Amino acid sequence: MNSSMIRVILGHVLKIEALFMLLPCIVALIYGERQGYTYLIVAGFCALVGVLMSLIRKPKDTALYLKEGCVATALSWIMLSLFGALPFWVTGEIPSYIDSLFETISGFTTTGASILNDVEALSYTSLFWRSFTHWIGGMGVLVFLLAVIPLSGGSNINLMRAESPGPSVGKLVPKIKSSARILYIIYFIMTVAEMILLMIGGMNPFHAITLSMGTAGTGGFGVLNSSIASYSAYCQWIITIFMIMFGVNFNAYYFVMIGKVGKFFEVEEVRWYLGIILSAIAMITINLHGIYGSIPETLRNASFQVASIITTTGYSTADFNTWPMFSKVLLVLLMFIGACAGSTGGGIKVSRVVIMLKTVKKELNNYSHPKSIKKIMFEKKAVEHEVLRAINVYLITFIIIFTTSFIVVALEDHDFTTSFTAVAATINNIGPGLELVGPTGNFSFWSPLSKIILMMDMLAGRLELFPMLILFSPKVLKELFIDNLRTGKNKD
Amino acid sequence: MNSSMIRVILGHVLKIEALFMLLPCIVALIYGERQGYTYLIVAGFCALVGVLMSLIRKPKDTALYLKEGCVATALSWIMLSLFGALPFWVTGEIPSYIDSLFETISGFTTTGASILNDVEALSYTSLFWRSFTHWIGGMGVLVFLLAVIPLSGGSNINLMRAESPGPSVGKLVPKIKSSARILYIIYFIMTVAEMILLMIGGMNPFHAITLSMGTAGTGGFGVLNSSIASYSAYCQWIITIFMIMFGVNFNAYYFVMIGKVGKFFEVEEVRWYLGIILSAIAMITINLHGIYGSIPETLRNASFQVASIITTTGYSTADFNTWPMFSKVLLVLLMFIGACAGSTGGGIKVSRVVIMLKTVKKELNNYSHPKSIKKIMFEKKAVEHEVLRAINVYLITFIIIFTTSFIVVALEDHDFTTSFTAVAATINNIGPGLELVGPTGNFSFWSPLSKIILMMDMLAGRLELFPMLILFSPKVLKELFIDNLRTGKNKD
Repeated sequence: MNSSMIRVILGHVLKIEALFMLLPCIVALIYGERQGYTYLIVAGFCALVGVLMSLIRKPKDTALYLKEGCVATALSWIMLSLFGALPFWVTGEIPSYIDSLFETISGFTTTGASILNDVEALSYTSLFWRSFTHWIGGMGVLVFLLAVIPLSGGSNINLMRAESPGPSVGKLVPKIKSSARILYIIYFIMTVAEMILLMIGGMNPFHAITLSMGTAGTGGFGVLNSSIASYSAYCQWIITIFMIMFGVNFNAYYFVMIGKVGKFFEVEEVRWYLGIILSAIAMITINLHGIYGSIPETLRNASFQVASIITTTGYSTADFNTWPMFSKVLLVLLMFIGACAGSTGGGIKVSRVVIMLKTVKKELNNYSHPKSIKKIMFEKKAVEHEVLRAINVYLITFIIIFTTSFIVVALEDHDFTTSFTAVAATINNIGPGLELVGPTGNFSFWSPLSKIILMMDMLAGRLELFPMLILFSPKVLKELFIDNLRTGKNKD
Repeated sequence: MNSSMIRVILGHVLKIEALFMLLPCIVALIYGERQGYTYLIVAGFCALVGVLMSLIRKPKDTALYLKEGCVATALSWIMLSLFGALPFWVTGEIPSYIDSLFETISGFTTTGASILNDVEALSYTSLFWRSFTHWIGGMGVLVFLLAVIPLSGGSNINLMRAESPGPSVGKLVPKIKSSARILYIIYFIMTVAEMILLMIGGMNPFHAITLSMGTAGTGGFGVLNSSIASYSAYCQWIITIFMIMFGVNFNAYYFVMIGKVGKFFEVEEVRWYLGIILSAIAMITINLHGIYGSIPETLRNASFQVASIITTTGYSTADFNTWPMFSKVLLVLLMFIGACAGSTGGGIKVSRVVIMLKTVKKELNNYSHPKSIKKIMFEKKAVEHEVLRAINVYLITFIIIFTTSFIVVALEDHDFTTSFTAVAATINNIGPGLELVGPTGNFSFWSPLSKIILMMDMLAGRLELFPMLILFSPKVLKELFIDNLRTGKNKD
């Protein structure tokens, strides 16, 4: 295990986090809030620890193998959250550290599940930081790191691979650094576009900025207790459209960027994604018939909730907990499907689901034509055996983690639906589930044990399962802690 | 499509069903019930149709390819149920035909989900027939057919393959006919052993016979409204042990039969199966602490319910709907795991689950040793690529059928848990689920649409998904109905 190199990366991540924390300090300045000092002090602390980590013992070897890439990614996200939770706790706005950590992990993983009963009681500074964690987590902190810091060694792809969502890694251009930069540029432009459109609709700039960051990361933290329900219909539609846009595979935007606009709708995953969204909106709108005053209102609520759930954002304009069971089950299904690979959304991802469906179709054909050697096609290419295998392993692993978490949180004896959807809403990085964890509820009632399980699920879901499993495998834990201590002693 | 050969098989199946229906006639004679006449008339009708089907147009070609084997199997089970439901309906004991069909499919597929509010109101004749369908369905009617009728053509393996549970077909000996006979001999001996042991415990012979048939097929229809709760502790333990025994891979009994007793516990699937049962019993016994009067009573109820659910039998001695959520979630998990392949139980099957777990373990190892070429081992052999692929396709297909059914039954707007576990309890051939379909409830309240979906799920679950999917694929339906009619016209 190349622990020195992992330490260097963690040091960089902390230094970047320190920089990020200066933004809420500016918000504190504007609103004259004393919480800004806390953020400044914590930022200084992050920077100090980060610099110290980079200083001691330089790595001899800068290469990172796949396993090490996973470990570095998982540890980066855990450390980012451990430090990112400090301001909430130190300011006393969230009195318990474990709750602060839950809120922060929920932020970085773009889940949006909250333990707060009263969001509006938070300072502007903390509200900003909370939404900003979504923005960082959406595109990924390591992708950011790769975009700004020249890491030597050719194995950076293993960092990007571990952090990027989807079955195959999208290097847009041959150089990783350029790919990472392009991604962040698209991300930034789209976020700013949403902010402007919301402000044109009369939204207060603070709300427009925070909500846009929450949309961009497909996070879901709002700044009002009513989430998005009290904004104008125009603003709700803008957010709906941008949620859907941030759930699109960013490769498709790259085509637009380089002038190949026509290719946007040729991306098979995007076509499926939009098809699923339209079908779900149609079915739910029909199912909700008579519940809302008018058809446009029904359509707006159906569209908003479908977009919010499939992109795994988690904003709400309606308490879908009170909707008919058919609509609720459809929403739960969308939770698992999730957004496109290579987007900021979570879930299993549309491309994986489509390839799985095609696998079954092929199998049924094989019963009629046992000698057929037709391959499964996706995005106009034959799906490689290795990709199929990876998807299957992903699905099984997903089921195992889901089931284990479900059993553990069931120890608390809440109802079946609450326990089931709490796990579904965290592992798929959505936020709200049904019943006690529905849009009008929150996660504060869970015991510390369940909160830890749900935090692990959020991280596992965001990092596509394996980095977390590898980090917590007994062998890696031993290499990281016991062996390192030992070699450390021998050398010093 | 070799429709003529399929028709011949269906004819045989009907003739066998006619024979089977003579048994309830004997029961009617003993108890002096007039329902016997109905069974006699229906038996005559079955025989007539069966003979007619075998007479018209002899098949030129007796070979059955994989697809045709699947179609023949699915159609056999549907026809068996359509005719088997007649007595319930004609006697007026179940006034609606769709309910009679539900009860019969639930019987043959060894599910045990009932639409009856009052089981005890049925005649002895119908109670016997109801339990007897479990016994036939457990080992399979086509396996029975292969054991007694010399079907020419070397493709009978495709019939057995379509009907036998598990990822690989267990031909015990080279000849299919002998394999089928050995299976039925073991099955018969074990059923009789249970009957005798129950009668030694003082159980009334009618109860002992019907309950033993229900145990053997891992069915679950009882003859009292209280299921098994009112029998003595001794009888409950006997049933527990026999449920577990009928969930064991029958290959293991074959080893015992040919004198290799030691090999019984060497079967990896059996070891896992027993391990899962013991762990689940231990966890649930601890979780139930304080609910029952004494530890032996708690242990007995925990063991009975675990055995009943994992073997997908569905008998109950306790209303587990009132148990703590942790125990309930464990039971729901056991519903999906199911019994061993090559047993009479349903579910996904222990061997499939174990191979899936090993796939994930191998994947995690690959992160550390990317060049490793270790194979997945099961039953001391490397698992072939084709088996892995089949298991993955099975899992995905299972999820698709489950999800689709869940969405359709959700249209009725019952609670999440009822809808979820109703599908889980039927597709896995268990019987009771949770909430409205729990041990004290039944399936009578569902609409005809939902009942049809749940019937399809029972058949799909019993036949391991693909035969039903292939039968209902548009192409096969067209070949069966439209093309046959056309060629029929041309030829006659």
